[in-house]
Amino acid sequence: MAGSSFGQIFKITTWGESHGKALGVVVDGVPAGLELSEADIQRFLNRRKPGQSKYTTQRSEGDEVEILSGVFEGMTTGTPISLMVRNADQHSKDYSNISHVFRPGHADYTFWEKYGVRDYRGGGRSSGRETIGRVAAGAIAVKILKQLGIDVITYTKSIGPVGVKKYDFTEINHNAFYMPDSEAAVEAGKYVEGCMADKDSVGGIIECRINGMPAGIGDTVFEKLDANLAKAIMSIGAVKGFEVGDGFAVSNSSGSENNDDFIVDNGNIVKSTNHAGGILGGMSDGSEIVFRAAVKPTPSISQPQQTVDVDGRPQKIEIQGRHDPIIVPRAVVVVESMAAITILDLLMTNMSARLDSLKDFYN
Amino acid sequence: MAGSSFGQIFKITTWGESHGKALGVVVDGVPAGLELSEADIQRFLNRRKPGQSKYTTQRSEGDEVEILSGVFEGMTTGTPISLMVRNADQHSKDYSNISHVFRPGHADYTFWEKYGVRDYRGGGRSSGRETIGRVAAGAIAVKILKQLGIDVITYTKSIGPVGVKKYDFTEINHNAFYMPDSEAAVEAGKYVEGCMADKDSVGGIIECRINGMPAGIGDTVFEKLDANLAKAIMSIGAVKGFEVGDGFAVSNSSGSENNDDFIVDNGNIVKSTNHAGGILGGMSDGSEIVFRAAVKPTPSISQPQQTVDVDGRPQKIEIQGRHDPIIVPRAVVVVESMAAITILDLLMTNMSARLDSLKDFYN
Amino acid sequence: MAGSSFGQIFKITTWGESHGKALGVVVDGVPAGLELSEADIQRFLNRRKPGQSKYTTQRSEGDEVEILSGVFEGMTTGTPISLMVRNADQHSKDYSNISHVFRPGHADYTFWEKYGVRDYRGGGRSSGRETIGRVAAGAIAVKILKQLGIDVITYTKSIGPVGVKKYDFTEINHNAFYMPDSEAAVEAGKYVEGCMADKDSVGGIIECRINGMPAGIGDTVFEKLDANLAKAIMSIGAVKGFEVGDGFAVSNSSGSENNDDFIVDNGNIVKSTNHAGGILGGMSDGSEIVFRAAVKPTPSISQPQQTVDVDGRPQKIEIQGRHDPIIVPRAVVVVESMAAITILDLLMTNMSARLDSLKDFYN
Amino acid sequence: MAGSSFGQIFKITTWGESHGKALGVVVDGVPAGLELSEADIQRFLNRRKPGQSKYTTQRSEGDEVEILSGVFEGMTTGTPISLMVRNADQHSKDYSNISHVFRPGHADYTFWEKYGVRDYRGGGRSSGRETIGRVAAGAIAVKILKQLGIDVITYTKSIGPVGVKKYDFTEINHNAFYMPDSEAAVEAGKYVEGCMADKDSVGGIIECRINGMPAGIGDTVFEKLDANLAKAIMSIGAVKGFEVGDGFAVSNSSGSENNDDFIVDNGNIVKSTNHAGGILGGMSDGSEIVFRAAVKPTPSISQPQQTVDVDGRPQKIEIQGRHDPIIVPRAVVVVESMAAITILDLLMTNMSARLDSLKDFYN
Repeated sequence: MAGSSFGQIFKITTWGESHGKALGVVVDGVPAGLELSEADIQRFLNRRKPGQSKYTTQRSEGDEVEILSGVFEGMTTGTPISLMVRNADQHSKDYSNISHVFRPGHADYTFWEKYGVRDYRGGGRSSGRETIGRVAAGAIAVKILKQLGIDVITYTKSIGPVGVKKYDFTEINHNAFYMPDSEAAVEAGKYVEGCMADKDSVGGIIECRINGMPAGIGDTVFEKLDANLAKAIMSIGAVKGFEVGDGFAVSNSSGSENNDDFIVDNGNIVKSTNHAGGILGGMSDGSEIVFRAAVKPTPSISQPQQTVDVDGRPQKIEIQGRHDPIIVPRAVVVVESMAAITILDLLMTNMSARLDSLKDFYN
Repeated sequence: MAGSSFGQIFKITTWGESHGKALGVVVDGVPAGLELSEADIQRFLNRRKPGQSKYTTQRSEGDEVEILSGVFEGMTTGTPISLMVRNADQHSKDYSNISHVFRPGHADYTFWEKYGVRDYRGGGRSSGRETIGRVAAGAIAVKILKQLGIDVITYTKSIGPVGVKKYDFTEINHNAFYMPDSEAAVEAGKYVEGCMADKDSVGGIIECRINGMPAGIGDTVFEKLDANLAKAIMSIGAVKGFEVGDGFAVSNSSGSENNDDFIVDNGNIVKSTNHAGGILGGMSDGSEIVFRAAVKPTPSISQPQQTVDVDGRPQKIEIQGRHDPIIVPRAVVVVESMAAITILDLLMTNMSARLDSLKDFYN
Repeated sequence: MAGSSFGQIFKITTWGESHGKALGVVVDGVPAGLELSEADIQRFLNRRKPGQSKYTTQRSEGDEVEILSGVFEGMTTGTPISLMVRNADQHSKDYSNISHVFRPGHADYTFWEKYGVRDYRGGGRSSGRETIGRVAAGAIAVKILKQLGIDVITYTKSIGPVGVKKYDFTEINHNAFYMPDSEAAVEAGKYVEGCMADKDSVGGIIECRINGMPAGIGDTVFEKLDANLAKAIMSIGAVKGFEVGDGFAVSNSSGSENNDDFIVDNGNIVKSTNHAGGILGGMSDGSEIVFRAAVKPTPSISQPQQTVDVDGRPQKIEIQGRHDPIIVPRAVVVVESMAAITILDLLMTNMSARLDSLKDFYN
Repeated sequence: MAGSSFGQIFKITTWGESHGKALGVVVDGVPAGLELSEADIQRFLNRRKPGQSKYTTQRSEGDEVEILSGVFEGMTTGTPISLMVRNADQHSKDYSNISHVFRPGHADYTFWEKYGVRDYRGGGRSSGRETIGRVAAGAIAVKILKQLGIDVITYTKSIGPVGVKKYDFTEINHNAFYMPDSEAAVEAGKYVEGCMADKDSVGGIIECRINGMPAGIGDTVFEKLDANLAKAIMSIGAVKGFEVGDGFAVSNSSGSENNDDFIVDNGNIVKSTNHAGGILGGMSDGSEIVFRAAVKPTPSISQPQQTVDVDGRPQKIEIQGRHDPIIVPRAVVVVESMAAITILDLLMTNMSARLDSLKDFYN
């Protein structure tokens, strides 16, 4: 069954395996008239590239993107934009020893059960490299959103027990963990190094804030803005939880605490607080949208683990090769990309919500 | 934009407002040959009915369902099943005083911003009554799943600070909170009564467990089982967070703790633990699926709140009428319904995953 | 598998069987702010009602529509509009004799093969009554299109060998065949009466013209305007062919004949001819859209026919009951409805085609 | 708006322009376990390649396909298969003279009106080269169908006034027109040469026959088998009409002629005739599926034509460059591909039509 497309009017379709020839995405529904170059996309891809700090895998992945269609003389034409990254540094032999064994915490077993065959090299389709297509598409979505006055800021909120205490967004791109707090980043570094020494891995939380969203985006029932964001974010490998605004904390809150009062500020209706995280009844309420994703520790660890092979025999496994001790930093841009893709699609589908708008548009 | 359909091959389309003539759902893609009666559906609807304990609104809603199509001589025919519940006890006048005011924590403002008109009676489309269609459809999905050997158990895990300590599933339907722990239910009752005395409301957490799922259901990328569950559950009004397995706790776990070992048990490959909540790489792994939803406190409270009216003037509001001090108990069956609808659809789309299965089916 | 929804942003979902309790449609994605009453819809439904001339079945079907949701104080609210028509005059016993026999030209056999059960009363879901939902939805779509300056005119072009020679659109609603030529209608009447005397039935061609469409609506590849119209029209029972512009005649034309020159007329770019039927490369070209549908003769005839029963035994069948000797006149409004639904949906999805429009809309 | 995807469970997404870097398709939902090589796909692509006879453009297009993902060790893995063909022989300068002029019969004008920008080189996205992706995907669909015992045969039925008189399917691949009648092909050749001498072009009709289809495939209402085929085929550029079975001829037929009797043959229920073209009530009836497509004459002709430029000034245009005088022969494999893709998707979605099948599958 097809499962590699996301979005309705702004739709992305990703493809590719970790150690196949290439990975890519078709971005369909990009409005015509956007200036777009490979550099715009490369900038995003570089944010998820490995090998940039000691806390990420030392594989050198070139990850150079090629625009194959949909852009003419530097401008989008409205037709699908095909983006491709060739896989260069494949090292398939690293994986031959796990070809018959199900790695704990990975999709090896479920893949095998579903399909009966599996490209075991580096996780195949369920590798983190699958997100290359998402990020390439996200670069386009973010660029369009900026022109609509909408900004998406994404960062690491915590690494293991180390949470950020300051929110200095200019700091995000200046530390290996994409934290808005340089001191927390230093602490996080120490924590991660401890885990690495133990041949273990670490989880964390990513937070995303979207500013400039007009009110009323998202639908009332199944196509709620938060429901779509939840699907988008939970579709990223390793994400095990999603929450918006106060999130799980609402379960121990009260209505009088959790409701946000409406007030008038400079003639605009705004909320005095933002427990709702910018979404009421599935629609944006004009305030900042805030959500979080919980990311599990990298399942690839070099400690010995108990598992089973494809013939149903117990096996010990110690995963070798180059693996990130923590997925979080590289997933930040993936979260940002999926958020941008989701809200852009909803902005587009929203345009016919009122008869008056439709009439203005066509008359 | 259309936003009231959910599912691909097993697809539901809900309609109706709190105080309109009726509410309902069209359930399309129900396999032919299922015995189905109104009683099957009524049993589910009764679980979300108000007026059943002192902790829920005392409105008496008959909520009697009528099957309008798709069933012939007690058997489904494969055609869409239209289910309707007439609205009887409308009391529209209760709401006239809020027709021009945006209630905090509700969708009044976002609805107004999106559409410029709004059926203000009882929340209109964003009322909890919207879930009638979901639950009616869920009754069908659950009945089919049972025939496939799949059970969905849903209950309240916590109410405010009161969490369950035992998991006695036979207890769930014997207390007002649908908790699997009668003592916790007593405590929760006391806690809620305290909130009611303060004219305030309470949140909580709902947990759902699915047993009997074959491995390999769900897709690897965007149509992940957990991503689809996340959208389904987050599309329920008042849900602000979703997590699967260890959920947000993974952020402070390590790979060695969080990975579930594979072992052989009675000749079957199983996991020794279930931190993953039954889903690996977006696909069911054959163990119990476990997820949770965070439900916010009822936004309708009778304490005075600060807000604004449609003309942008500050207003004080005290919400009168009959409101649940807690949404959680009545949302339990809604969560169960959306979960069942989601996994049934994925089971159906999964049937062509292998060429061999396709050939066996048609040859 | 779900098959009763049509459209993406303006989406309809129909339900109901010929002799079930009711039939209806959920119309989702109707923009807020449209004045809408049951009379608006009834007017359309009356155009497909039987019993209006001697050439249609004499069953008296009340077909009174009820708006169940989505309209508040006479205005659409943006939420799904549920429309229902109760089945009154069911006469199920008329059909008992065909409960085990497959009528030639009907869906009895295919239904049985697909589902293994079947509501045999009056064709069940594959009855012409299924179109009630389409027409009710079409009434809304046509009303919106009118406000955008778009008119849809539909009529019978030929009945058996009798084709229209004049196109006087004021005449369409003044004869039993919805022909724009009163003399042709008289001739057609004679022809149909001859067939009725032979216990036989007649086919014909319906033509539809859409004026006022802006250029550029429809997509370049799979979502072509003509491709979507083709699906919409071929999804109407009894339609066996669809063509746009010169249609099948292009197969014996030449490029120099078939190409339409562009010229400047009053400062506007227009085409000097319209062989293309208003669609180039899948997009509207600003000229009149013209398409035709071929409708087969009513399969229910009272001549004896050879068939087989559900146990695989040969049977003779003479279909009794009240049947139209010709489907065409009552299908005219169905074609119009499906065309309107299709183009309205494409107009909505088109709004984000250009970055500039998107920016104008949101800034 | 996204418009380059087709299919629900077996879904293709095409991309690429005539003179861009490359063209391709992502084929998602291919069952795992299919042996697949580039040669399987190349064989299909070669059938649409130009330069193979004097009746097609003499451009030499290498059109060598590369499998980029979804196949591992010669076997499909269930993940999306990305197929790419690099554009080699681009000759962009041929098109510079038409960069500001709207060619009659082409999508230049509608593209311009919709998007405001346009890749004018060789028609850009609306070039016939767009079908490379369809055909590459079709090769996979046809290969799967064969394993299910389903054969798709497609051929030219007429070229201008020259129709085939014999149906010798072994002859199809042995003449330049893909006609099942070698004598008709000779005649057609003479006719086309006459047109070429006149600097003109020719249309024709393509017919497709599908054998081995189980009964009951396709849905009763909007997802009718014929409706889906109609969309698939009408989405091919230059197709202006679609009909199934007797098609437009039904409009002048009678019920007694047009109904196909059911009879018992060797213990099987079959039809004595096949006016219906193998589809009743939107579902396959077990007999041969027959449909036809009307293809317009190539709009690119070198006769002088009247048109307008982007500044609204009248212009004369004589289209130079290498163009097929007839599209039909190269479109045969495109029709076959779209038909195969359509029915494979419907076969997949049909698997959950009966509760018993679902239970058998999962128990």
